[in-house]
Amino acid sequence: MPPWGARAGRHHGHRVIEMDKIKVGILGASGYTGAELVRLLSCHPNVEIAALAGDRSAGQTLETVLPHLRMVDVPMLVKIDEVDYSGIDAVFCGLPHATTQEVVLKIPPHVKVFDISADFRLDNLDTYAEWYGGAHKAVDLQKEAVYGLTEFYREQIKSSRIIACPGCYPTTSLLPLVPLLQEGAIDSNRIIIDAKSGVSGAGRAEKQANLFSEVSEGVHAYGVGRHRHMPEIEQELSKAAGRDVTISFTPHLIPMNRGILATIYATLADGWTPQRLHGLLSGRFFNEPFISVLPFGDVPATRHVRGSNFAMIGVAQDRPTGHVILVSVTDNLVKGASGQAIQNFNLVFGLPEQTGLEQKPLFP
Amino acid sequence: MPPWGARAGRHHGHRVIEMDKIKVGILGASGYTGAELVRLLSCHPNVEIAALAGDRSAGQTLETVLPHLRMVDVPMLVKIDEVDYSGIDAVFCGLPHATTQEVVLKIPPHVKVFDISADFRLDNLDTYAEWYGGAHKAVDLQKEAVYGLTEFYREQIKSSRIIACPGCYPTTSLLPLVPLLQEGAIDSNRIIIDAKSGVSGAGRAEKQANLFSEVSEGVHAYGVGRHRHMPEIEQELSKAAGRDVTISFTPHLIPMNRGILATIYATLADGWTPQRLHGLLSGRFFNEPFISVLPFGDVPATRHVRGSNFAMIGVAQDRPTGHVILVSVTDNLVKGASGQAIQNFNLVFGLPEQTGLEQKPLFP
Amino acid sequence: MPPWGARAGRHHGHRVIEMDKIKVGILGASGYTGAELVRLLSCHPNVEIAALAGDRSAGQTLETVLPHLRMVDVPMLVKIDEVDYSGIDAVFCGLPHATTQEVVLKIPPHVKVFDISADFRLDNLDTYAEWYGGAHKAVDLQKEAVYGLTEFYREQIKSSRIIACPGCYPTTSLLPLVPLLQEGAIDSNRIIIDAKSGVSGAGRAEKQANLFSEVSEGVHAYGVGRHRHMPEIEQELSKAAGRDVTISFTPHLIPMNRGILATIYATLADGWTPQRLHGLLSGRFFNEPFISVLPFGDVPATRHVRGSNFAMIGVAQDRPTGHVILVSVTDNLVKGASGQAIQNFNLVFGLPEQTGLEQKPLFP
Amino acid sequence: MPPWGARAGRHHGHRVIEMDKIKVGILGASGYTGAELVRLLSCHPNVEIAALAGDRSAGQTLETVLPHLRMVDVPMLVKIDEVDYSGIDAVFCGLPHATTQEVVLKIPPHVKVFDISADFRLDNLDTYAEWYGGAHKAVDLQKEAVYGLTEFYREQIKSSRIIACPGCYPTTSLLPLVPLLQEGAIDSNRIIIDAKSGVSGAGRAEKQANLFSEVSEGVHAYGVGRHRHMPEIEQELSKAAGRDVTISFTPHLIPMNRGILATIYATLADGWTPQRLHGLLSGRFFNEPFISVLPFGDVPATRHVRGSNFAMIGVAQDRPTGHVILVSVTDNLVKGASGQAIQNFNLVFGLPEQTGLEQKPLFP
Repeated sequence: MPPWGARAGRHHGHRVIEMDKIKVGILGASGYTGAELVRLLSCHPNVEIAALAGDRSAGQTLETVLPHLRMVDVPMLVKIDEVDYSGIDAVFCGLPHATTQEVVLKIPPHVKVFDISADFRLDNLDTYAEWYGGAHKAVDLQKEAVYGLTEFYREQIKSSRIIACPGCYPTTSLLPLVPLLQEGAIDSNRIIIDAKSGVSGAGRAEKQANLFSEVSEGVHAYGVGRHRHMPEIEQELSKAAGRDVTISFTPHLIPMNRGILATIYATLADGWTPQRLHGLLSGRFFNEPFISVLPFGDVPATRHVRGSNFAMIGVAQDRPTGHVILVSVTDNLVKGASGQAIQNFNLVFGLPEQTGLEQKPLFP
Repeated sequence: MPPWGARAGRHHGHRVIEMDKIKVGILGASGYTGAELVRLLSCHPNVEIAALAGDRSAGQTLETVLPHLRMVDVPMLVKIDEVDYSGIDAVFCGLPHATTQEVVLKIPPHVKVFDISADFRLDNLDTYAEWYGGAHKAVDLQKEAVYGLTEFYREQIKSSRIIACPGCYPTTSLLPLVPLLQEGAIDSNRIIIDAKSGVSGAGRAEKQANLFSEVSEGVHAYGVGRHRHMPEIEQELSKAAGRDVTISFTPHLIPMNRGILATIYATLADGWTPQRLHGLLSGRFFNEPFISVLPFGDVPATRHVRGSNFAMIGVAQDRPTGHVILVSVTDNLVKGASGQAIQNFNLVFGLPEQTGLEQKPLFP
Repeated sequence: MPPWGARAGRHHGHRVIEMDKIKVGILGASGYTGAELVRLLSCHPNVEIAALAGDRSAGQTLETVLPHLRMVDVPMLVKIDEVDYSGIDAVFCGLPHATTQEVVLKIPPHVKVFDISADFRLDNLDTYAEWYGGAHKAVDLQKEAVYGLTEFYREQIKSSRIIACPGCYPTTSLLPLVPLLQEGAIDSNRIIIDAKSGVSGAGRAEKQANLFSEVSEGVHAYGVGRHRHMPEIEQELSKAAGRDVTISFTPHLIPMNRGILATIYATLADGWTPQRLHGLLSGRFFNEPFISVLPFGDVPATRHVRGSNFAMIGVAQDRPTGHVILVSVTDNLVKGASGQAIQNFNLVFGLPEQTGLEQKPLFP
Repeated sequence: MPPWGARAGRHHGHRVIEMDKIKVGILGASGYTGAELVRLLSCHPNVEIAALAGDRSAGQTLETVLPHLRMVDVPMLVKIDEVDYSGIDAVFCGLPHATTQEVVLKIPPHVKVFDISADFRLDNLDTYAEWYGGAHKAVDLQKEAVYGLTEFYREQIKSSRIIACPGCYPTTSLLPLVPLLQEGAIDSNRIIIDAKSGVSGAGRAEKQANLFSEVSEGVHAYGVGRHRHMPEIEQELSKAAGRDVTISFTPHLIPMNRGILATIYATLADGWTPQRLHGLLSGRFFNEPFISVLPFGDVPATRHVRGSNFAMIGVAQDRPTGHVILVSVTDNLVKGASGQAIQNFNLVFGLPEQTGLEQKPLFP
């Protein structure tokens, strides 16, 4: 980290390019996932942030749009179309859903793409069209993309060019559920996910619904029976179960900035107890650097993972016999978005998976 | 309302007693439910607050312990044992669970009792002993008490001396569920209540778990599979269903002061659709002054009832067919505690049920 | 309050007009000050809300734009130009600054106007033009208007047609300062007002700066040295002092919905002590129904007046001798906006000043 | 970072001690400053956390008292008296004021002490006794201690054994003020510091005043005219000015977890303008790795430094001529406590000052 004063000169003089680092570009740098990518990548020992782009913020310095990052030495923002990919090895995309496809179409093939939007997550293009308002415009790229839920797709991710990083609700819900369905531990016909999200999940766009006075000091459900993350969760659960799974999924908006908590109600399959199920998950995630299964009966809080790439999972006995309660938490901007993208980046570039993601949760 | 200055003299001079008003005492006046009783009753046209009691705050003025009520003209706090009941017509008890029984035993029989604790809510004394740590000490009084969920027990309340006002979670959960079970509209075997509460529900006691820095900026579940409000909810649901009902109930702590939101997942009985169920609830609550069933598919937010005695209920179709989602909201300190106690008080004293409870929700 | 169900019919049938009530219209009904007017006026015993208007929300029911007021029986929203003033006695304007003048120009002269915008507050039209971006368009009306700081302008308000209700920062700052300058108790050359405001003061417009994630969990100053409320405060302080007063005024945004707290640093005039100054304020506000001066050394919190029309003032000794600290709090939407407008309305229509404003503060 | 599962074995097996790292102990590990030390030191490349102590939490694992740190591999907590200092090189003390002296007296002389309490900050023992309730019990150690405001005491810190790390209010206030008084740029007779703090500054002790419902959704001043941090600020300002300085200092509690914002009102000395003063500060901090002076007229927000060791300073023109407004922000738990302690630790052990403190601010 150069002294503040020395950094001040960077806009006028030449930036020294360190040649042995992986050069990355960040598209959509002025939003929350973009900000989070800069925050984390600026401490990544193998990365140089070589380009920042955002159409609304083009021509500005990063500190103008994100004053908390003024100590980071990065280039000025340019328009997305103006990014020079010649020296870029990888791109992180934090752009709105449905706008990313066309951007990615123009990215040269030598550049790896880590996409945080929903554009490449759905295998079924009809489903995509139904939930995202129109036909997919980059069908070939979609076929090439791999679903970037690291813990379940490691090998595919390593050899892919386009990584469709999962949404925050899917990440948090799938981590405990996929192993259970793979092993037939729960009934795939009646899975209820009651999810609670912080407000940053709604992005930085100017909407009345996300004003402080509209969302503080209260809680409400939204998108009841029709949230866009449903098909993504169902796609992965269906793969895990080997049959079509339809879930009940109800998200709620919580007056907090970061965090997703999914409370999952499931029915045990024959022969399973909550304790055996806990053993299954504990074993499955034993060697995972970012996933922690709490002691049986303990449940996690979102603030225990805030600002970090960690996920925590709790398993508890429900009062009616034959049922189990799972509680899963992540930071929606880290493991649920930018952190997982970096985790995948590390995989693709052959780096230890935790590189640049060692920061511990921030509490309080 | 006398001028501020005039009021200042009240601690030294004589207080003018208005003889035609109902004289009430408030026990536990320095807690949140006590504060809420003073807030609401000070605007009640037929009430005079004649006694305030609290063991820890005895000897102090109310404005010392509750500065937001300094403009209210009330007597100084005394010890609970020192309340003179001779001129008192009714008492509101906002004392901790398990301590109220012995206090109520000493209250003369001419005084009506509106209890906000759990002490008189459970018919089954074994259940009481199991969940509240010991044998009940006022068994005869318990038999005399009526469960004060106004909308379902109006007639019994009118003729009772001890009204066991329901807890906040039970009120919010039972309002939509009781009519459904009474009519056999849902399967009583699989009812899941995922509840979200503001922090004031935990009371004003000094606990690390309720410090600002411990509960702000995050969400967590607590009491998973073993919350004390479960047996109370099950008691009433069992009565409604005519058979034993065991529920799944998971409360979550939300970083907000007030409000309960219950998201309820239920399975439709044969012949029922979500729309028909919505019609049932709409009809059932059509004439209720404090209960509103929203248009089908709409769901309420806690901030829409904040500070008021109103409850709002939403009914929505779940994605898997054969299931329904209900969302119910109240202010835990008003309809879930002090407001409902006043509603019952109005019934008992033959006043219009809305008297003193006309204040509209405060938003933002 | 009619039953919920009965109210449902109001949009289709005839509304019963109570002939002995004062008919009021509310312009800008879908914003926060508009919402607050409906909340308070719906419980005002002498008022009928006869018209609601808002250009963006025209054609909708109030409950669509303000779901927390769905239990209030009011007409549908119309465009501002479409208000029929023939049966209207008074209008409350909660419209944006600089747009109110032209609206008021078209209001027939039999209608009293209670304006919450800044449009009629500044006597000096050059000052208005400098701070609000252009020449005033209703100069004659401006001359007719009276500054509606009730406690200091009662007599003028009673006989005026246009009441320019003060802003939230000015109300909170002027209440303690005007008497001090009138009596020469402090040095008018060095008054520092460090003000803290809740987010609702910024209104309901869609601005990135007011998103939950932008303003929660932090504090910042804004408009340093150039906030629009400065000239309004200086105008009134200059009148009180009998000479031009220039203040230091720095507002800060606090992650809370409601409330203004002004911490005021002043230098005592010769012969004055903090205690004598406290005596002056205590005497000045002794008979005021809404203003409370705390015991010497005590300071108020914004949560002690939340949701109410009350103001509280504290006076404390500063550590350096010869100086005094004043702390003043109001609810920016009530005493700082809609509540004070109703207080003035009561004056104009010969009602007791507290009518409809008896609600006590809501805490927690 | 070992895998989660592997870590689980640490409580039963042998911990591998890395011999080339500096071994540190943390006293008071279960409080917020202790938690913050663990969070930051667990990523410090040259540190091994060799002992954790806390009297109330002794015998527990860290994850029991601080679940957000469960992924950190540290020893179990012991009682403070039971720490084995034989292998310890340095100790961080996050204990309550007035209790640290006696603990430090027992620490062997080979151990460097980085104290976050107030016990060793005040040179004048009479002042200490006046503000902290009694005579100092470790007078010789007090004389040995150096005041750990890194940017102004670097050389003394390097050669000291006991570093009295400054409080959060003093750090935030002194950073901009010391250079101004050293250069005579402002009048030392009238400095007003209006400070705003997050709730974590009050620590983790169980106090009603810090409950969520008591401090959320509102703001208030506290300790008006008598806060314990006053003498510490005055001590350092007096040294800088070369004469006794008495300040006006008023802290306010803000409903946020972290952050201090000091708004400072000062009078310019002859020959000084706000711009020249801005130039002075910009130059003074040009090479400081953690201090940023914003462009003239810009002011910082606490959320721009959250979770980091950075401080930001803004300088703006006040409306009355001859005056200037300074705004200074830090994270009270990092630069205002644990981060600065680590910065000093780096100095003492000859490490680059930023080691382990490179994490960028967390926003939102």
